[in-house]
Amino acid sequence: MTDPKSNAVPVVPRVEPDRSLLPQIQIEDVRRAATCLQEHAHRTPVITSRTLDDRVGAEVFVKCENFQRVGAFKFRGAYNALAQLEPEVGVLTYSSGNHAQAVALAAAELGRQAVIVMPNNAPAIKRQATSHYLARAKTGSRVVLYDPSTTVRETLGHEIAAHEGLVVIPPYDHPHVIAGQGTAALELFAETGSLDFLLVPCGGGGLLSGSAVTAASVAPGCQVMGVEPKCADDATRSFETGHLHRVYQPPTIADGARTPSLGKYTFAVITEHVAAMHTVSETEIARATLFAWERLKLVVEPSGALGLAGLFKLAQSHILDDQRIGIIISGGNMDPSLVGAIVTRAEASTTDE
Amino acid sequence: MTDPKSNAVPVVPRVEPDRSLLPQIQIEDVRRAATCLQEHAHRTPVITSRTLDDRVGAEVFVKCENFQRVGAFKFRGAYNALAQLEPEVGVLTYSSGNHAQAVALAAAELGRQAVIVMPNNAPAIKRQATSHYLARAKTGSRVVLYDPSTTVRETLGHEIAAHEGLVVIPPYDHPHVIAGQGTAALELFAETGSLDFLLVPCGGGGLLSGSAVTAASVAPGCQVMGVEPKCADDATRSFETGHLHRVYQPPTIADGARTPSLGKYTFAVITEHVAAMHTVSETEIARATLFAWERLKLVVEPSGALGLAGLFKLAQSHILDDQRIGIIISGGNMDPSLVGAIVTRAEASTTDE
Repeated sequence: MTDPKSNAVPVVPRVEPDRSLLPQIQIEDVRRAATCLQEHAHRTPVITSRTLDDRVGAEVFVKCENFQRVGAFKFRGAYNALAQLEPEVGVLTYSSGNHAQAVALAAAELGRQAVIVMPNNAPAIKRQATSHYLARAKTGSRVVLYDPSTTVRETLGHEIAAHEGLVVIPPYDHPHVIAGQGTAALELFAETGSLDFLLVPCGGGGLLSGSAVTAASVAPGCQVMGVEPKCADDATRSFETGHLHRVYQPPTIADGARTPSLGKYTFAVITEHVAAMHTVSETEIARATLFAWERLKLVVEPSGALGLAGLFKLAQSHILDDQRIGIIISGGNMDPSLVGAIVTRAEASTTDE
Repeated sequence: MTDPKSNAVPVVPRVEPDRSLLPQIQIEDVRRAATCLQEHAHRTPVITSRTLDDRVGAEVFVKCENFQRVGAFKFRGAYNALAQLEPEVGVLTYSSGNHAQAVALAAAELGRQAVIVMPNNAPAIKRQATSHYLARAKTGSRVVLYDPSTTVRETLGHEIAAHEGLVVIPPYDHPHVIAGQGTAALELFAETGSLDFLLVPCGGGGLLSGSAVTAASVAPGCQVMGVEPKCADDATRSFETGHLHRVYQPPTIADGARTPSLGKYTFAVITEHVAAMHTVSETEIARATLFAWERLKLVVEPSGALGLAGLFKLAQSHILDDQRIGIIISGGNMDPSLVGAIVTRAEASTTDE
């Protein structure tokens, strides 16, 4: 049964993972993406912290995709996808933020037209950055805002794309996007060797899928685990029940994880290669975000701190003791004017467990 | 003449730089400090940013001492100074924050007693961290708070030290402290080779002095420039007039630069080795702090952003065009609850020039 408080609604009809899609996202695709991204994406640093290690009783390696171009891992997948298209082809995407910026910058660098469909409640910092990048892209590039309470972004996006002859590059459910995202974990394992666990934020599942495909080949002993907000637990429910669940506008501070559901590719890959899914409360997300600012000196957005929040939660049960653990900080596009709200949430005397 | 708006008061009697002190701080001392700090201090990363380079029209290398232990360069000088003392010797220091944390952690690691004299208006984040580290130091370690409007910290500190037989480790005016601070620039030049300019925050002048001694030997073509708040411009006035100036409780958001004046060692070294001093307004400091947050994804405290603020200011006059420039981000101990005030200040429609 579905808990009404979770905002989760099982989809009708029942959708099960389609294993026939798996051959489309292999380690060779991730390696090709890594070659494509050389000279274009940053090879982001992996940092360690004695404070963090002492707190969780493990050896932790933090892959800092907040330092990636556009401030999030999304540039990897977007650039890889756009680079595969024929010259002169324009693109369209829909995104609440970081993927929008990523497609905008990739289009600017590759000289393509890009139309970006964004919800009118997307963070201002992400809207502004998207427009900034589009100013350098080809004529016809623009942001189209929509009201998420009345409009289905996929429907609007496909209408515009059909009318203008644009190729849709969805934010996560696309083999080239997933392969691009997998390059972050590829770089991490190249630096750390194998790990016991890898904790990855999960919204639509692109980063988690890419990481899991990569780990399965280059670090097969590593258990890849996804972390998502408790009030946006569609991926956890989908993973655990074996059929796709959705959420409707979940009220999480992790705006990158407000995606309604996994996609057909990400659901298949996650079912095949991910070891476990975990959820964290809003308070736990806020506390992890604040820990990153105060102790790691990293600007991390709440979605980006999901892996760190999962680390703190799992550390309480001691299953991570003395293990070698990777976490991916997925992004740092945090509006500074919202910092006060995060501090307030983190300092809440009771959690929203 | 002294501008009354600047909070600067020329000291009476007139103090001129004492060049006889210079032999006490040589490059060999910095190199010895580097050896002492191996395995104890972090070798902090040097980051680059296309966004930053594009904005200032130069090639910029950012030495990130916000990632240093205790969140600031201060650990270098404090550890180096404490490591030189005989075993069993306890220490005392007075500091508005980062040096306090640094001495506390160094004392904990070296098994010494430490008494830290702090103003009662020091940022909460710095007070808490200092107490946290002291919990691991030797018995008798503690924080002593004082009211900066009624008490001279040096007087109070020396009284307690004399009574308890403690060695005073001042926050900047000490050869071992200055030599330790110089190791940050030593690491920077080792990574980048020579540079045209190096911009360094200046409070009491410890980091600036250490950087200048280092540059004079390992990168003699590099012009080292200090940057301080306009409303706390004692070092600039001292540098330009050739005699020591003081400020009284300057109202700058850069709390690490509220020091009353240079010291006898730092005044001598800065006069000898620094090429120029620059001042920046409170709005410029806030904007640089916010740039670090939003675009570099680095948590930087306002004092830590002084070099970046100086970079933006100097870039306007194009003297930095196409040059290779180092800046040191000196610290990241920023209370997140104060970010809102920084945003407000940065967005001020007029500057406080």
